[in-house]
Amino acid sequence: MAHVERMKAEIEQDAKRPKPTLEDLGLADVTKQVVSMEDDMVVEAIEREMIRVAVSILEGNGFSYKVPVSSNANVMYVKELDRIVLKDKITERAFASLGTVRKTALMTRVMELVREICTKGIHVTKRDMFYTDVKLFKVQIESDAVLEEAAAMLGCTRASLNVVASEKGQVVGRVSFKEAGDLIDCTKMGIGGKSIPPHMDRVTELKGDAKFVLLVEKEAAFMRLSEDRFYNTYPCIVITGKGQPDVATRMFLKKVKETLKIPVLALVDSDPYGLKIFSVYMQGSKSMAYDNASLVTPDIKWLGIRPSDLDKYKIPEQCRLDMTAKDIETGKSLLEQDFIKDRPEWCKELKLMLRTKQKAEIQALSSYGFQYLTKEYLPRKLREGDWI
Amino acid sequence: MAHVERMKAEIEQDAKRPKPTLEDLGLADVTKQVVSMEDDMVVEAIEREMIRVAVSILEGNGFSYKVPVSSNANVMYVKELDRIVLKDKITERAFASLGTVRKTALMTRVMELVREICTKGIHVTKRDMFYTDVKLFKVQIESDAVLEEAAAMLGCTRASLNVVASEKGQVVGRVSFKEAGDLIDCTKMGIGGKSIPPHMDRVTELKGDAKFVLLVEKEAAFMRLSEDRFYNTYPCIVITGKGQPDVATRMFLKKVKETLKIPVLALVDSDPYGLKIFSVYMQGSKSMAYDNASLVTPDIKWLGIRPSDLDKYKIPEQCRLDMTAKDIETGKSLLEQDFIKDRPEWCKELKLMLRTKQKAEIQALSSYGFQYLTKEYLPRKLREGDWI
Repeated sequence: MAHVERMKAEIEQDAKRPKPTLEDLGLADVTKQVVSMEDDMVVEAIEREMIRVAVSILEGNGFSYKVPVSSNANVMYVKELDRIVLKDKITERAFASLGTVRKTALMTRVMELVREICTKGIHVTKRDMFYTDVKLFKVQIESDAVLEEAAAMLGCTRASLNVVASEKGQVVGRVSFKEAGDLIDCTKMGIGGKSIPPHMDRVTELKGDAKFVLLVEKEAAFMRLSEDRFYNTYPCIVITGKGQPDVATRMFLKKVKETLKIPVLALVDSDPYGLKIFSVYMQGSKSMAYDNASLVTPDIKWLGIRPSDLDKYKIPEQCRLDMTAKDIETGKSLLEQDFIKDRPEWCKELKLMLRTKQKAEIQALSSYGFQYLTKEYLPRKLREGDWI
Repeated sequence: MAHVERMKAEIEQDAKRPKPTLEDLGLADVTKQVVSMEDDMVVEAIEREMIRVAVSILEGNGFSYKVPVSSNANVMYVKELDRIVLKDKITERAFASLGTVRKTALMTRVMELVREICTKGIHVTKRDMFYTDVKLFKVQIESDAVLEEAAAMLGCTRASLNVVASEKGQVVGRVSFKEAGDLIDCTKMGIGGKSIPPHMDRVTELKGDAKFVLLVEKEAAFMRLSEDRFYNTYPCIVITGKGQPDVATRMFLKKVKETLKIPVLALVDSDPYGLKIFSVYMQGSKSMAYDNASLVTPDIKWLGIRPSDLDKYKIPEQCRLDMTAKDIETGKSLLEQDFIKDRPEWCKELKLMLRTKQKAEIQALSSYGFQYLTKEYLPRKLREGDWI
């Protein structure tokens, strides 16, 4: 565990150093990042916006919203921050224009609903929101999209609007917190673990003596670690987003990392899809670029399963799978991405994968026995500090 | 709550009456139902089977397994038990036959793996099992199918084999239990609730003062009930399987109902799919017919959203959806199913749905405000005893 201790010390040191801001980097063409807001601040921001609209109408200037553009052309990767940010392009949506009248109406209705939710201090799902006015929204994808735009326009994180998607992440291990007043001790959550709280603003007093976070892609690995109480032997917090992580899981990971100042080691499948999951946790998604500052956890270490592990740990041939043409294409496009290019060791691993054309799931380790993961593979990785 | 109290008293009375067994019903052509077995009993059953095989080979009679047939023709609905059971057709799979050699090899390997798991007293996922021998199993659907057959042949529930699928159910409310030794109090699980334990054999000491179970189809409704702490005002246990329930959720519901002897009221979408979910909880699935006795919870009441609720609760037109041709077809086929035919009130509701050609999700209630479900709809339903 000496390697883990060293990383933890580095992270604590690093936390004391001031971080470069968008201003420091001279990124004048980048949108001011959104901030997390309390319910009453959101209500105030909405009322301010509506008063602005009312005044504009009374002055004879009509009714429009200024919405940040979320297209691919308006996002960029900032190396110093290691995350995707939104640029400053704004579009003006007028009510008195055939092309934008509908979106303007939707935006007004969404703000009305969000104001109701925040005034009551409750949380609802995206599906609930859509269903309050099916006839207006027509398909859920429309209300979801306008919701993101409302957050970006109001300058707050989407979570601040108290509208959440479904939840699917799970956590177990050496961490405790209060969720809506209830004390949750994740060392006492049986094998199933605790569902990651959907509303991060209800999570307080997070603490724990974990030395690292073990972030696992797959639920099967989570259950193995949980049943074997891996966190008793190696003080850690095990988190899974079950594939592509949702917003709640990403916010929870970020909160754990920032509060406890411990390294995050990730265990994903050795395939291009595993690397894509890294990119969502670390750089954020393009569709929520305005909100990435509150969602991303930079500096996650790639513990395994790495392409070079397949030979190092002698994964039998019959447990390796051939990459499909689609896999290879995805892998090649990842080689072009900034967050891979900036990490020469990751590049090397990805190139090895593309050369051997072999992939393997975490479960491939089961070929040496179901507990090989918890009894051999991870202990050796931790002893040798074998991550990149 | 008088209606709920009355039902609870009936269920307690009913629990004292002896249940008809397959023998009582004179169902000679029905397979002996499987039973739940401890790890050492499973190991013993496997070893007994393998000794039988060895003796057969030594005696010159070759190597074969006798496997219950799981095709549609070999299952039947038993009205008195209100569940789907497996009939007695058996197929003999010989190793020395081109058509069955592969399945026989797979079955042998699966039993070897299950024996390892049960000897160690651990649990693994279906995916883990598949991955221990990818080259033999080829696709996971094959190892999954053989696993079911092994359980049916050995005469134990699939859960007894310690191989589970993924978990997705959640629970919150007035129930507590021990999971692998940890005390889990579901009144203190925040808003996210507790993940339903994947391994029911690790769940002990289940208790609680709940008067009923509220079984909800959708996660969004679960989160609403959880955030509003509905179970504080109405002492209940809220369970969701997030759509089609998995085995763990069904076993958990059954355990709760049988231990606490309380009624189960279900809240599903008003569409044919909602009724299909009922059938899985109540009658079980055909593919696991051999195991249904350990999985089904008969006598679940249909609280809502019922087709007649749409007018009774004045669900606005814009929140109702038109049924698709596929919906109507599914609805018509449900009318033919025994568990619907045996419930005249359900029949009436389904016919109403097919006549109006309208469906609605639970979320349609949000049109009267996000908390209409917890503050108006459910309190009225409970006050009036409005379920069928």
